[in-house]
Amino acid sequence: MAGVRPRSVVLLSGGMDSSVCAALAVRDTEAAALHVSYGQRTEQRERKSFERICDRLKIGRRLVCRNEVLRTIGGSALTDRSIDVPEAHQQIGAGIPITYVPFRNAHFLAAAVSWAEVLGATRVYIGAVEQDSSGYPDCRPAYYQAFNQLIKAGTRDGKIEIATPLIAMRKSEIVRLGLQLAAPFDLTWSCYSREDRACGICESCVLRLRAFEGAGAIDPLPYVAQAVSHQV
Amino acid sequence: MAGVRPRSVVLLSGGMDSSVCAALAVRDTEAAALHVSYGQRTEQRERKSFERICDRLKIGRRLVCRNEVLRTIGGSALTDRSIDVPEAHQQIGAGIPITYVPFRNAHFLAAAVSWAEVLGATRVYIGAVEQDSSGYPDCRPAYYQAFNQLIKAGTRDGKIEIATPLIAMRKSEIVRLGLQLAAPFDLTWSCYSREDRACGICESCVLRLRAFEGAGAIDPLPYVAQAVSHQV
Repeated sequence: MAGVRPRSVVLLSGGMDSSVCAALAVRDTEAAALHVSYGQRTEQRERKSFERICDRLKIGRRLVCRNEVLRTIGGSALTDRSIDVPEAHQQIGAGIPITYVPFRNAHFLAAAVSWAEVLGATRVYIGAVEQDSSGYPDCRPAYYQAFNQLIKAGTRDGKIEIATPLIAMRKSEIVRLGLQLAAPFDLTWSCYSREDRACGICESCVLRLRAFEGAGAIDPLPYVAQAVSHQV
Repeated sequence: MAGVRPRSVVLLSGGMDSSVCAALAVRDTEAAALHVSYGQRTEQRERKSFERICDRLKIGRRLVCRNEVLRTIGGSALTDRSIDVPEAHQQIGAGIPITYVPFRNAHFLAAAVSWAEVLGATRVYIGAVEQDSSGYPDCRPAYYQAFNQLIKAGTRDGKIEIATPLIAMRKSEIVRLGLQLAAPFDLTWSCYSREDRACGICESCVLRLRAFEGAGAIDPLPYVAQAVSHQV
């Protein structure tokens, strides 16, 4: 039956959401995995996670690309060393945070759609999450609806669709789904600022810890510190 | 008055259309210029054109970026050395040609919009042309309408607009407009396959020569050969 399954490209950063998304892609399609390094602070650690997760999920077709634009232009705490990564309590819920990388997901999706065209894949998976997230504008359903229109208008066949299976899920539900799918949480990396142990205090760590707590599960990653309550 | 003019980013490949577009951007806005090298056959020559055109148009703020995804994935005669650049008569009017680089303009626009967000620019110029062109899907008005929706949904303020001032013009009209604006045609490069003298037979050369002929003007570039009639 494998021959009739659709082909897909899954964007895999190495974080918890994209890893669950990749596990779904592997379950439902012949998945190829794309990782983009863009000069973010933790790029070495994330790339290592990408490779290990692909090994675990048995994704053979992989592409690691470097995007130098985002680092060059800066404007985000993730790519610009002159801007500190804030602690979660400074910004969760306070509008679009300084960790927003300007129009970043369009770069990733463009790469994935281009590769999908060449591979003959009809689906591009991205683990974007709207709820319980950082409030990035390029993680909202309207953005992906617009992107699908863009693909219809601007590709050879117009037949590739962006799939965002996690977008409406709570982060705790994503943890539960990942546990069902045996998603490799132990190999993932979410921390925005450190590469050895997760800091436990940036928004990404706090949202992750809160998600595991909400799911009644233990996060297998080592942390430097954990807030007493994750309900910041 | 310069202080109240809007800021813009103009995508400048170094070809005739983007150069006329850049001349318009400089006339109407405080323009910054973005050039993306993507492993295309003539990238050295195009980058040189970019710098010289910026000098001539007095565009001080410039960014040259490398996109490695498009070269890596291939799938186009422009980026994949195993696919020959066809001669114009083999493909003009025959559907989407093999010189189509999969979803290429999305990469360029993503870079321009990201930079525009950081610069506080509200307009991104691109010299896309639908008529008299190669039939690329990402050069049609519907594509740019969709991209504007994407920006509205997926950026911090949603206030950047893609401007495509040439999209409905005939190529000969673009030449006439360029002559009026003193666009630096002598510094441009359009050939898909050569970097020393333009080949005169690829689709890009033929469309360009036909445009100058239609405008009753002389193309200042040196050519290896020119078809007896450009009405292929």
